[in-house]
Amino acid sequence: MSDSWLEQIKWDKDGLVPAIAQDFKTGRILMMAWMNREALQLTIAEKRAIYWSRSRNKLWRKGEESGHVQTLHELRTDCDQDVILMQVEQLGGIACHTGRESCFYLRHEDEQWQSTDPVIKDPNNIYKK
Amino acid sequence: MSDSWLEQIKWDKDGLVPAIAQDFKTGRILMMAWMNREALQLTIAEKRAIYWSRSRNKLWRKGEESGHVQTLHELRTDCDQDVILMQVEQLGGIACHTGRESCFYLRHEDEQWQSTDPVIKDPNNIYKK
Repeated sequence: MSDSWLEQIKWDKDGLVPAIAQDFKTGRILMMAWMNREALQLTIAEKRAIYWSRSRNKLWRKGEESGHVQTLHELRTDCDQDVILMQVEQLGGIACHTGRESCFYLRHEDEQWQSTDPVIKDPNNIYKK
Repeated sequence: MSDSWLEQIKWDKDGLVPAIAQDFKTGRILMMAWMNREALQLTIAEKRAIYWSRSRNKLWRKGEESGHVQTLHELRTDCDQDVILMQVEQLGGIACHTGRESCFYLRHEDEQWQSTDPVIKDPNNIYKK
């Protein structure tokens, strides 16, 4: 099995690319995180979103703690082959660590970031202590 | 007028953040590019997507050559305040320099990147020589 598709991706100087997760049903953008080569390969192999956590410096199987796994329906790259776009099913309906559906809940309004979307589940009840 | 909203964005070490453009009607992701502080400020001020071109090292008023302007409907950031998401109207229906609606036309299929979407307009007829 060839991995030339992996070679074709233009990894940045840290070996990463941005990866966007979009809800395959609603089209809502759920989050953007980063992937290294291994994360992208595993995302395809395991048919779920796997990122590289820059803060923890390790692979991040989305949902590994919260159960909020993103199962993969489709994966694309762009004309420059330096961004990944995934169509996913968001298990639990919550992508954000704040307990919201999407991480993009801060809307620019009147020169401020206005929090717009409801918290579906208290983060204290999402993450094990 | 305060620009504390600009200060709150977590610019990377190059002073940039990724900016995603989504079609405000269809929800389709059109492209991802980069913004510096000035680009984000101008995007809000001029109500159109303005990026920072990393290859040309200058501001890029999307559509300045092609006419394929992205007019701004809404702008958000995420929980970490290090990514921008715009809802835009894509004038001309073409975001990609290849003449396609979206830059994300390469789908992962059978261990290859398969080109999926039609070219709407020949790039030779988009850009002035």
